[in-house]
Amino acid sequence: MTELMDRGMQAAYEEALTGRREGGIPIGSVLVRDGEIAGRGHNRRVQLGNPILHGEMDALTNAGRHPASFYRECTLYTTLAPCIMCSGAILLYRIPEVIVGEDVNYPGESAFLRSRGVKVTILNNPELIAMMKSYIDENPAVWNEDISEEL
Amino acid sequence: MTELMDRGMQAAYEEALTGRREGGIPIGSVLVRDGEIAGRGHNRRVQLGNPILHGEMDALTNAGRHPASFYRECTLYTTLAPCIMCSGAILLYRIPEVIVGEDVNYPGESAFLRSRGVKVTILNNPELIAMMKSYIDENPAVWNEDISEEL
Repeated sequence: MTELMDRGMQAAYEEALTGRREGGIPIGSVLVRDGEIAGRGHNRRVQLGNPILHGEMDALTNAGRHPASFYRECTLYTTLAPCIMCSGAILLYRIPEVIVGEDVNYPGESAFLRSRGVKVTILNNPELIAMMKSYIDENPAVWNEDISEEL
Repeated sequence: MTELMDRGMQAAYEEALTGRREGGIPIGSVLVRDGEIAGRGHNRRVQLGNPILHGEMDALTNAGRHPASFYRECTLYTTLAPCIMCSGAILLYRIPEVIVGEDVNYPGESAFLRSRGVKVTILNNPELIAMMKSYIDENPAVWNEDISEEL
């Protein structure tokens, strides 16, 4: 792990590694509020056969139910740039800030998030880029299913 | 039930009523492919304490894992206009058509969906409008939590 990652991204990376150990797509996400982890999760498409459980959605699920005010003070960390579904969830809950591990392997919807007022920081951490590239090279069919691209 | 509803919206309405009987938010959704129901579900925020299980997301979950080509031939029926999270899911999976029961009680993101190429039809069925209005009037806190609005 590079020292450039802060604690939130470190936890998201650990979630991604957990996902990979489970045989799943290695994308992790962590919801942080007041410096504390309020929810953490990882992509569980493969593990649960669930098409909506991207890492960000799993972290939101595991954070549980909260009133609107809760999310306004949160930062979402995610190892890979959020897709349009996860970006929509960020916007629904008006999470003001998103830290993205990398957007080299998937461009995501950072421009759209920014257009609706979300602060997006993209780290492009080499370790995260290499992890995701390795997974995609070895599992193109599962990866394309996850982003709904035709092979 | 008015005779104006077709079979897909009828099934979505039944899902909403199931949700209400369970003590949940009465929003139902059905994914239809080739005239057959491929997945159906309803909002389960209250029942499962899950903030991402809007009706549309529950229907997608229950439809299970599919390749990209599957969704391209689907129509999504939902009793209430999709929020930005559910609209994002529709866009991720490139579902080409959405039939909305009503958008009187919640405006949703139809304009955004259309701007990205989705065909959106809004029925504004009086029965669906009355059902949702009744729920919101009786449960303003839960409803505001579901759309992440401050009371």
